[in-house]
Amino acid sequence: MSTSPISRYPIPELDTLPDDIRERILGVQEKAGFIPNVFLALAHRPDEFRAFFAYHDALMEKESGLTLAEREMIVVATSSANNCEYCVVAHGAVLRIRAKNATIADRVAINYRKAGLTPRETAMLDFAMKVSQDARNVDESDYEQLHPHGFSDEDIWDIAAITAFFGLSNRMVNFASMRPNDEFYLMGRVPAQR
Amino acid sequence: MSTSPISRYPIPELDTLPDDIRERILGVQEKAGFIPNVFLALAHRPDEFRAFFAYHDALMEKESGLTLAEREMIVVATSSANNCEYCVVAHGAVLRIRAKNATIADRVAINYRKAGLTPRETAMLDFAMKVSQDARNVDESDYEQLHPHGFSDEDIWDIAAITAFFGLSNRMVNFASMRPNDEFYLMGRVPAQR
Amino acid sequence: MSTSPISRYPIPELDTLPDDIRERILGVQEKAGFIPNVFLALAHRPDEFRAFFAYHDALMEKESGLTLAEREMIVVATSSANNCEYCVVAHGAVLRIRAKNATIADRVAINYRKAGLTPRETAMLDFAMKVSQDARNVDESDYEQLHPHGFSDEDIWDIAAITAFFGLSNRMVNFASMRPNDEFYLMGRVPAQR
Amino acid sequence: MSTSPISRYPIPELDTLPDDIRERILGVQEKAGFIPNVFLALAHRPDEFRAFFAYHDALMEKESGLTLAEREMIVVATSSANNCEYCVVAHGAVLRIRAKNATIADRVAINYRKAGLTPRETAMLDFAMKVSQDARNVDESDYEQLHPHGFSDEDIWDIAAITAFFGLSNRMVNFASMRPNDEFYLMGRVPAQR
Amino acid sequence: MSTSPISRYPIPELDTLPDDIRERILGVQEKAGFIPNVFLALAHRPDEFRAFFAYHDALMEKESGLTLAEREMIVVATSSANNCEYCVVAHGAVLRIRAKNATIADRVAINYRKAGLTPRETAMLDFAMKVSQDARNVDESDYEQLHPHGFSDEDIWDIAAITAFFGLSNRMVNFASMRPNDEFYLMGRVPAQR
Amino acid sequence: MSTSPISRYPIPELDTLPDDIRERILGVQEKAGFIPNVFLALAHRPDEFRAFFAYHDALMEKESGLTLAEREMIVVATSSANNCEYCVVAHGAVLRIRAKNATIADRVAINYRKAGLTPRETAMLDFAMKVSQDARNVDESDYEQLHPHGFSDEDIWDIAAITAFFGLSNRMVNFASMRPNDEFYLMGRVPAQR
Repeated sequence: MSTSPISRYPIPELDTLPDDIRERILGVQEKAGFIPNVFLALAHRPDEFRAFFAYHDALMEKESGLTLAEREMIVVATSSANNCEYCVVAHGAVLRIRAKNATIADRVAINYRKAGLTPRETAMLDFAMKVSQDARNVDESDYEQLHPHGFSDEDIWDIAAITAFFGLSNRMVNFASMRPNDEFYLMGRVPAQR
Repeated sequence: MSTSPISRYPIPELDTLPDDIRERILGVQEKAGFIPNVFLALAHRPDEFRAFFAYHDALMEKESGLTLAEREMIVVATSSANNCEYCVVAHGAVLRIRAKNATIADRVAINYRKAGLTPRETAMLDFAMKVSQDARNVDESDYEQLHPHGFSDEDIWDIAAITAFFGLSNRMVNFASMRPNDEFYLMGRVPAQR
Repeated sequence: MSTSPISRYPIPELDTLPDDIRERILGVQEKAGFIPNVFLALAHRPDEFRAFFAYHDALMEKESGLTLAEREMIVVATSSANNCEYCVVAHGAVLRIRAKNATIADRVAINYRKAGLTPRETAMLDFAMKVSQDARNVDESDYEQLHPHGFSDEDIWDIAAITAFFGLSNRMVNFASMRPNDEFYLMGRVPAQR
Repeated sequence: MSTSPISRYPIPELDTLPDDIRERILGVQEKAGFIPNVFLALAHRPDEFRAFFAYHDALMEKESGLTLAEREMIVVATSSANNCEYCVVAHGAVLRIRAKNATIADRVAINYRKAGLTPRETAMLDFAMKVSQDARNVDESDYEQLHPHGFSDEDIWDIAAITAFFGLSNRMVNFASMRPNDEFYLMGRVPAQR
Repeated sequence: MSTSPISRYPIPELDTLPDDIRERILGVQEKAGFIPNVFLALAHRPDEFRAFFAYHDALMEKESGLTLAEREMIVVATSSANNCEYCVVAHGAVLRIRAKNATIADRVAINYRKAGLTPRETAMLDFAMKVSQDARNVDESDYEQLHPHGFSDEDIWDIAAITAFFGLSNRMVNFASMRPNDEFYLMGRVPAQR
Repeated sequence: MSTSPISRYPIPELDTLPDDIRERILGVQEKAGFIPNVFLALAHRPDEFRAFFAYHDALMEKESGLTLAEREMIVVATSSANNCEYCVVAHGAVLRIRAKNATIADRVAINYRKAGLTPRETAMLDFAMKVSQDARNVDESDYEQLHPHGFSDEDIWDIAAITAFFGLSNRMVNFASMRPNDEFYLMGRVPAQR
């Protein structure tokens, strides 16, 4: 239904891409059933593509004291504060699937403080929002808020790093007017979809 | 899936309500198939309930130079800026139905300026956002921006009044932690729903 | 002394108005000695006029744990934050009369935190300002701040609802450039006036 | 009616003050009929008192392309943006007298852009507000806006310097919780006063 | 290396200046080895020049519970928040010399909360920033924060007054595009300089 | 002179690091004469280290229509807006060297709009600041502003990507309280240094 272009910048043909990038894209397509637009849009710059996804994987696919759903919550809440449609829609879809909850993404995106989250989740997002909007004032008092909820120092690094990385992503998406695939909007909302 | 209460304030039993309010609620239920939570939450104050819905109907159900979908766009964009989950979710559902477009509500909510809207729609939402966030600076230059897109002075009043009315609604919802019905999240996203 | 028009929109002749609206206006004129401009400006839209004043009366004229002067303080403080000349001047006049205090309205309008108010009044206005400017973050901690000052949950609804309603009013006044009657500026400032 | 102290800091007895300061204060009292509180509050620091009033006089009492009323408008508008009750009330009184207009001060304080001012006055206050709130971005484009309204480069210095000086004053008043004399509130509002 | 003019306004020739102003300037030149540009730029207005430096001296050269280095820290931190290049560079130089520390000025300018300051220094700058950016909310709680660090009420006046005075200075510098002398950039950074 | 730790998180011993990371660090040390602290602080997370510097090199060391000095200007201006001491000090040093100008970094950091830059540089930094602070509103009008200054679409991507990447860096530095090496403060300020 969206008819605007995928990005303001040119989208390279798949067969013109370096092998490693083409293979990563085909691998994602096989798994998801479609190619998420951000892969196509960033392929415009192969070296940045490689660094972007290496950073992404280092944060989002590793072992962590944060659950996979918690990590997606951070992405959705901070990307909404940065008005990044692609990140809210695509990671909102992943959040619904990870959390097995059809309504959580919209609630986290619009006002996580009214979303009926657990105290641990709220503390996590309060800190993520501080890193996103006011990192200059992060100090030991933030650690004192987070430790009682079971977050270790390494978990806190993860919250901050995910927030910082998606802050980069949010700015690139908005700068280049990248738009999310239509497929994301419905993922995780209806049982039949999975 | 949402388990938090409908409102921080008590929800009256239907049979304890004044007749006109109970009948309005039952009428909505018959039409929508469920009772939108805002009707139950505001029934706590019958006189305010009556004034609220009289105002709502005066703006949202009358003849206007604005289409029904345009009016819902104004609600979604300004309610998102005010972080009002109920209004974004419930009126996002109506917007999808009115616009016959499954993705438009999420796009308008997160960043209407990147949502692929028409110039008329963008100008309308730029003005609505100014009334919402910076009404003190509205002046003739705003009319000069809007007239060329086909908005009459009366249409401009409608944009402003819808924005102002939902600004009231957004504050009441956030103040009382009213939450949207689960039904709204999926409405208008899948053909089978309608 | 003010020579700008009452509103950017047309002011209907009294004898062209629906009976109920004309009678309400004449009733106010009889009581106040003049017709406050907002009645004339909103008469441009009879249905909105009716809903607006029904809402107003439901909040401002009913029984409440808030005194009449406290309600006017809320209007003056939040309307000043929204830069609404009409509301500050007209309700400032009423506040002076209700509080029998010639200087209180100006003090509340410019900086209520330096206005020598009671702790109860300051807590009330702190909360009203949060509803006005940052409703997304209202939570139980606000109730904990207000209860010790004698505000019940119902009183807190009143504070929020008055704030939300005048937020609507402030935006309509600024949008349509409605101006206050000259009569308001002096009301309640000099004994001879009353 | 105001019963809070004149200042959070001690007010020296007049007969303990250095001669030049006591004489200045007595001179003002003779002219105005009362001692404006700021003279008493700043006498706490004689050297700062002398510099403060020397600066004040250098800007407010000299020859200028700005009328006396225009200078007071700058004080009222920028002091209101800085939430300085003393400056808005005291200079609002002077503005009413200088402009021979009983309502102008309240209109300029709450929203000068809706106050029915002349284009020259509005341009002057737009620039003063930029110096007050966003001086980092002042550039040649501001001169291009002001010159056509008859402001010379020296007049523009006056606008900026008055704004900067009262920015200092606003911060001192709010810091020390200085309050305006009750006399100011009514000055210039009724013919009999003058 | 800077080639932009010293000020947007004319710089008077030294021999055209009133004797007291010329002598003050020559005295500074003899002590510093060069004439700081702000002396030349403000000489454009002799009466304001006199009041400005009288105010400056009353705050910066008197006895105080604040050390000379502490006073310069206040100037650097608040002038950076106001984006005032002249004040940050010139007073940064003085701060380096007073504190005998080559890196402190840059640290205080960019983020004093991450600058490794003492708790006393941090509390002092937190308060100065509140006076600079949010004076309307200064209240007794600020005194309670500062007293335990050894600041008396008079010291607190000094913090506020220095902040307020340089707020004036920052606005004049940015308004008139005054630029710092190249000499300041290196002062206090290398032992050989002193 | 700075005695606070390099980072709030542990700094690994060089000989415990993976070979590629240790070699990169030793290579930098050989070239610069010291190990910039960010290398030590990020080595705490080897995978993030690799992605971070791959991204950095992809933007800062490749061919571009932006000069090396222009790229450093972007880093300094946006990092200052984000209050990132490490980035302003370290990249300020590089900017001085690249631009062969001892004062440019301080001028760009505090107020680039008053720094005497060329129109091309100012337009570049205006856009970088928009990406940094308000990416949601980037649109075609920004390209129209930049093209006349000789920036191609690819150059504009570079400006945005450098801004977005250092936005990530700024947040990580402030989150983990990383501090710059003392060596950076003086680099490029005195001829003898180079």
